[in-house]
Amino acid sequence: MKINQFAQRRDVSLQQMQQELAAVGFSSTSNQPKQLLWHFLQRTHWQLQSKAALLDHLSQFLATPTTTMQQFFTGPSALTTNIFTLLGLELLGFQAGTDFQTETPQASWQKLGLAPLPAITDAATLQRAWYQLLTTHTPTALTYLDLLASQGYFNQPQFDHHHPLYFNGKAQAVFNVRDFHYETVFVETDFDSDGDGQNDLLKVEITRPDAVNPVPAVYTASPYDQGVNETLGEQLTHDVNVDLQPKPTSHFQPQAPTPLKPGQNHPVHGHTNQATLPHDPHPGYTLNDFLLPRGFASVYAAGIGTIDSDGLQTCGDPYQTASTIAVIEWLHGERRAFTNRTDGITVKADWCNGSVGMTGRSYLGTLAIAAATTGVPGLKTIIPEAAISSWYDYYRENGLVVAPGGFQGEDADVLAGETFSRSLRSGDELRTKTAFKDQLIQLQTGQDRETGNYNQFWDDRNYRNHDQRVRADVLLVHGLNDWNVKLSNAGRFWQDIQKLPISKKLILHQGQHMYLNAFPSVDYSDIVNLWLSNKLAGVKNEAAQLLPEVLVQDNVAPETWKAQPNWLTQAATTHPVRFNHDHWTQAYDSTQFAVFCKHPDHWETQLLDFSNPQLDSHRTVAQLDLNQDLTINGTVRLDVNVSSDQPVGLVSAILLDVGSARRLQPAPTVSAPRGLPLGYQWYQDDIREFQLEKFPSDHKIISRVHLNLQNRTSPATTEPLELGQFYPLHLAFQPVYYHLPKNRQLAVVLYATDFLMTTRGNQPINYHLQPALAHLQLPQQ
Amino acid sequence: MKINQFAQRRDVSLQQMQQELAAVGFSSTSNQPKQLLWHFLQRTHWQLQSKAALLDHLSQFLATPTTTMQQFFTGPSALTTNIFTLLGLELLGFQAGTDFQTETPQASWQKLGLAPLPAITDAATLQRAWYQLLTTHTPTALTYLDLLASQGYFNQPQFDHHHPLYFNGKAQAVFNVRDFHYETVFVETDFDSDGDGQNDLLKVEITRPDAVNPVPAVYTASPYDQGVNETLGEQLTHDVNVDLQPKPTSHFQPQAPTPLKPGQNHPVHGHTNQATLPHDPHPGYTLNDFLLPRGFASVYAAGIGTIDSDGLQTCGDPYQTASTIAVIEWLHGERRAFTNRTDGITVKADWCNGSVGMTGRSYLGTLAIAAATTGVPGLKTIIPEAAISSWYDYYRENGLVVAPGGFQGEDADVLAGETFSRSLRSGDELRTKTAFKDQLIQLQTGQDRETGNYNQFWDDRNYRNHDQRVRADVLLVHGLNDWNVKLSNAGRFWQDIQKLPISKKLILHQGQHMYLNAFPSVDYSDIVNLWLSNKLAGVKNEAAQLLPEVLVQDNVAPETWKAQPNWLTQAATTHPVRFNHDHWTQAYDSTQFAVFCKHPDHWETQLLDFSNPQLDSHRTVAQLDLNQDLTINGTVRLDVNVSSDQPVGLVSAILLDVGSARRLQPAPTVSAPRGLPLGYQWYQDDIREFQLEKFPSDHKIISRVHLNLQNRTSPATTEPLELGQFYPLHLAFQPVYYHLPKNRQLAVVLYATDFLMTTRGNQPINYHLQPALAHLQLPQQ
Repeated sequence: MKINQFAQRRDVSLQQMQQELAAVGFSSTSNQPKQLLWHFLQRTHWQLQSKAALLDHLSQFLATPTTTMQQFFTGPSALTTNIFTLLGLELLGFQAGTDFQTETPQASWQKLGLAPLPAITDAATLQRAWYQLLTTHTPTALTYLDLLASQGYFNQPQFDHHHPLYFNGKAQAVFNVRDFHYETVFVETDFDSDGDGQNDLLKVEITRPDAVNPVPAVYTASPYDQGVNETLGEQLTHDVNVDLQPKPTSHFQPQAPTPLKPGQNHPVHGHTNQATLPHDPHPGYTLNDFLLPRGFASVYAAGIGTIDSDGLQTCGDPYQTASTIAVIEWLHGERRAFTNRTDGITVKADWCNGSVGMTGRSYLGTLAIAAATTGVPGLKTIIPEAAISSWYDYYRENGLVVAPGGFQGEDADVLAGETFSRSLRSGDELRTKTAFKDQLIQLQTGQDRETGNYNQFWDDRNYRNHDQRVRADVLLVHGLNDWNVKLSNAGRFWQDIQKLPISKKLILHQGQHMYLNAFPSVDYSDIVNLWLSNKLAGVKNEAAQLLPEVLVQDNVAPETWKAQPNWLTQAATTHPVRFNHDHWTQAYDSTQFAVFCKHPDHWETQLLDFSNPQLDSHRTVAQLDLNQDLTINGTVRLDVNVSSDQPVGLVSAILLDVGSARRLQPAPTVSAPRGLPLGYQWYQDDIREFQLEKFPSDHKIISRVHLNLQNRTSPATTEPLELGQFYPLHLAFQPVYYHLPKNRQLAVVLYATDFLMTTRGNQPINYHLQPALAHLQLPQQ
Repeated sequence: MKINQFAQRRDVSLQQMQQELAAVGFSSTSNQPKQLLWHFLQRTHWQLQSKAALLDHLSQFLATPTTTMQQFFTGPSALTTNIFTLLGLELLGFQAGTDFQTETPQASWQKLGLAPLPAITDAATLQRAWYQLLTTHTPTALTYLDLLASQGYFNQPQFDHHHPLYFNGKAQAVFNVRDFHYETVFVETDFDSDGDGQNDLLKVEITRPDAVNPVPAVYTASPYDQGVNETLGEQLTHDVNVDLQPKPTSHFQPQAPTPLKPGQNHPVHGHTNQATLPHDPHPGYTLNDFLLPRGFASVYAAGIGTIDSDGLQTCGDPYQTASTIAVIEWLHGERRAFTNRTDGITVKADWCNGSVGMTGRSYLGTLAIAAATTGVPGLKTIIPEAAISSWYDYYRENGLVVAPGGFQGEDADVLAGETFSRSLRSGDELRTKTAFKDQLIQLQTGQDRETGNYNQFWDDRNYRNHDQRVRADVLLVHGLNDWNVKLSNAGRFWQDIQKLPISKKLILHQGQHMYLNAFPSVDYSDIVNLWLSNKLAGVKNEAAQLLPEVLVQDNVAPETWKAQPNWLTQAATTHPVRFNHDHWTQAYDSTQFAVFCKHPDHWETQLLDFSNPQLDSHRTVAQLDLNQDLTINGTVRLDVNVSSDQPVGLVSAILLDVGSARRLQPAPTVSAPRGLPLGYQWYQDDIREFQLEKFPSDHKIISRVHLNLQNRTSPATTEPLELGQFYPLHLAFQPVYYHLPKNRQLAVVLYATDFLMTTRGNQPINYHLQPALAHLQLPQQ
């Protein structure tokens, strides 16, 4: 086990430590370190009723390899750094013999990655050490103080449960979950997206602590939140076994945006100081639930087109963005909300301090980016995880229809149908079906699966057009193995915001399309806590200085996270690569084609198994042995000349890590289901971690790229394709951060149809390379 | 979607329905069915503040395919059965177009498997229909009333939160989870298993509702509950690549049991009426958590050898059984407990009505069987799921060391080490390591991996020796695909208790080693609720009459559960089977052997792929086409004559279902993570269901058997094995309940080493059949 903490403040003065310790119940009652430690242990074991009970309990812990803490406290020995360290490891819950050695506690402490403890010489150094112990991580992805809080520590009557409490710069779980308010309000927009004549109302569900003073809000906009119409989504899913069609020459020029259609406001009949409609309590996003007892309100809205709200689902257009920020405008005091949909009673967000942070993964994080690119006041920070920054980069690539991994046939219309949860309520469905049918036709025309080109539809859904408006600080999180929302979404957004006068941080983990909570190896929840305590509650905790600009999880060593100076700014070196064939073909025989359509994973396995010649005519491979330990940081490019013997063509490429090794498994392993408590008598999450594969694998995909030969210049530009003419292609792979150890090689595989992602026109197209020599541009750390 | 409800009482008089309806807030305020329905809907939508808000909400639901419920209530139409049924489907949460058709609500209702609604002609029939709707299942594995409760329905002030409330014979979630008591006590035993001179104390963690009158207790004894020492378990795990050794002739005779060693009692210094030490609230077994807000206390104890308790871990011996029932004796008022381990203050379980039910899966359910076979007073019922009834049947089979599926090398000593959680606390570990080392030596000697024979060690761990003492009613649950705890454990226990004067029910599902909660297709939680309301709270709900004797999930049609008259009582028919080879060999070439040891799943795939000749010399196969739709109910036996050319030998056999078909997937699919609320502001579980395989599979294992040729008569009897001598074997497969459709065949595969389960002596043993003809005895339904 290795612990990597980035949000642990160590530059705290003794005086401040003492103040903070006293505030969380650890006053300095003695000048004797041993007596003071006893006092502290009485506090952390407040449930035990007597000295005898505590001593009996301490008999379960060791002071030295051969004596217990009970013997220590009943004997004459003085407190040493060794004794404190051993006790600390035990209190934190690390396991003797597995996580640490009782003979060498200090070396074990260091090996676990924990910050060195001060040498204990007096009461002051014990206080320092104790302060640090409280902020050190347990094996359950919590600090020791958080763990105590989850056991009811702050539930003791002497603590104030209605004001926030910050320790080591982070909000502590002092608010009583039994006092939470569960409220629903309906925010009124300025637009009428469903054409019923009235401005759309949006249901907003608020869970908030019972606080004396206004609290910050963490807001998650989730179109999925009110349910998903899977049946409609399946009905709309497109057949991907369609031929690539020749496209006329074109170049897209963006038009001025169409203004949103206004409707009538709802009549107002009164005002109340308090919301009257509750909502059903249920666990949400772990991060929000973690923050709730720590004094942050958690706000969810599903937006237009969802149950109990008005409007039609649009998948990423300006109506959806306006719907997303309407909630922020209400939280910030600039928009009206009602207590219900009919009675005209308005209600303000008086409980909110006007500071909003947005969280969420995938579509949810996407809407955080959408909101931030409007510059809406009140939105102080966004924490988008695995978020889309341009919908073209989600459903298209270089003039091709390219599905998000695992979702062949999905498109903007499918997702709109799936998340149009109003259709799940049959009365609503009856009243909206005509309007939504029209909406779907517009979406289908606009998304234009026939060409795959970048057009006005996609430009309307490209949040990066407005990146310069971003005023919110950004904590961006993305998985380096995410083939659902691909890394170009994070990469291009990250590059765009570099010059803005905002604070920005990036975390790249080894996950696929997943949340980063609940990994013991990294203090992600603390990072967010530190960040939001600073951004939303104004706590001076030097979050910007403390957190690294770019935090990257290593793909070779498990549980290893490293601060890095940058991403995507490295200059590339050029390496010639020689492909083993100078031609390949698109069409498979019909039996093979049918099998691969059904089992695209079998196709990928065969494609990447170079010892199996079966797919030799469908691929060309170049291997590159750099014979050095290499870290690729950024966008790898392949320069290559390719021809097609048809007026259409597509090129796909995979960048491969080749060599037998036990790599990290693609999905994390749950080590303790519900093992992570988010507060006292509150929700839990599953603790997980990436483990190494049980047996070595032969290769791993580093990156991919796909391109329509007619869009060799740009997704917005279509050019003719002359038969047999060689065109220079500059294939930009999805950006990466990849550690390739010395004993492994790079390979590039060129092919046509990607059964997992592209359309699958089984067309008799033959491709040629000229010459077999090409160049790979590698940005190295 | 198909719903199968077995715990829905339909034989309730109108008068009783009216009384029960009034008690849960649905009084008869009108003689007009339409007005009464409006009143009921106001009650179920209590959060909405006005008539306008309810009407607006009802606009989301249909009354007919073309009119909404809002239009219905503002128009002149009368209430019809069709309108009620359509509304019912919508209120329950079924999905129009997917789960039901708006044009034909009554046919949809029936197709979903829901009990027919009465025709609505007046207020009384509406009450009947409403009563039934409240007891009907939603798609989330809850009744509609349970769903309302999870949304806070019973949290309204007019309901009593301190007395149980029964509706339709089942306890309702009226207790407020905020009022729960979390208590820890230490029960004193009469024995000293760790030799420290004092009687062992056992930590017991209680969670209980705040009730005016004493409540029943649901008790789960879980040796895992305080943590698991995985490192120790791994260290103890045995090498299974060991040769089978010739065994001397022997026959086991059981000895009189050794009495438990008594120790000193703990001094008593006082008494208190209330426990003073809390415990950390966290989710437990779903079933217990489901029962808690319904008025049942949930009690957990990990028993001897676990953290905060005394004693050494024993894996199934009489000390562990005594430790398990000590808790029941305290709950039943016949044993002492202390508020903590040191202060000598006793505390009674005054909050308990003395009626205890035991729940739990695997080891946990095993200890329920252990307790029941003592006949301990107060234990009114047990609900063992996937439980062991004799530890020999868990770690051994017919004179062979046979591992539980997936746990090669595990044995009683390994499990004892794993669950000796005291060793996780380094102070405890220091003090107990010598004693536990001796304990391990005793376990290792006793379990005798060298012979695999049934001996005194296993006889001490055979709860079925005492089956005749069982006085608790039994609701037995087991997965028909459980290869961890094999079905002989359930089967033999079930057979033993048939003649006892107790109530007994059996549920066989299509799962592996899993819990049956949270499957929408069957009302398992209701069954348990009905059962425990009857057994522990004395509610006269005719549980014994209402629930089927044997409930079996079909293995062909998904979501299909059928009442069956019996299990294991069918007479068998004999079918000649002809094997395709008359000899096979045990030894593999060393490369192949190494691969199969590493990937035993590859071995199984090849063994069962008859088109692949690679393992032909290691197996002999008989296929049997009965050309009929067949249900095998019970124990299949194979009569066959086998010889070995060595003085040792083992025979393994697999009974196979052959034929291309989409079968149920082996593991359930989670359809809604945390989608099942267990109460209001309480825990959730993941909703899951077995789905059909995406693509057809070629075969499926129905059952297995393994036998040491020296134990051909009995596990307790070792006989010599003459080289080349043919012995008649009567191989009894693990009992099954299996539906084999007409277009599929049976096959029997005979082989030696089972890489997944037996030891793997790669010995040059050759086996012969004489003649190739053998007989299969099939108990058919």
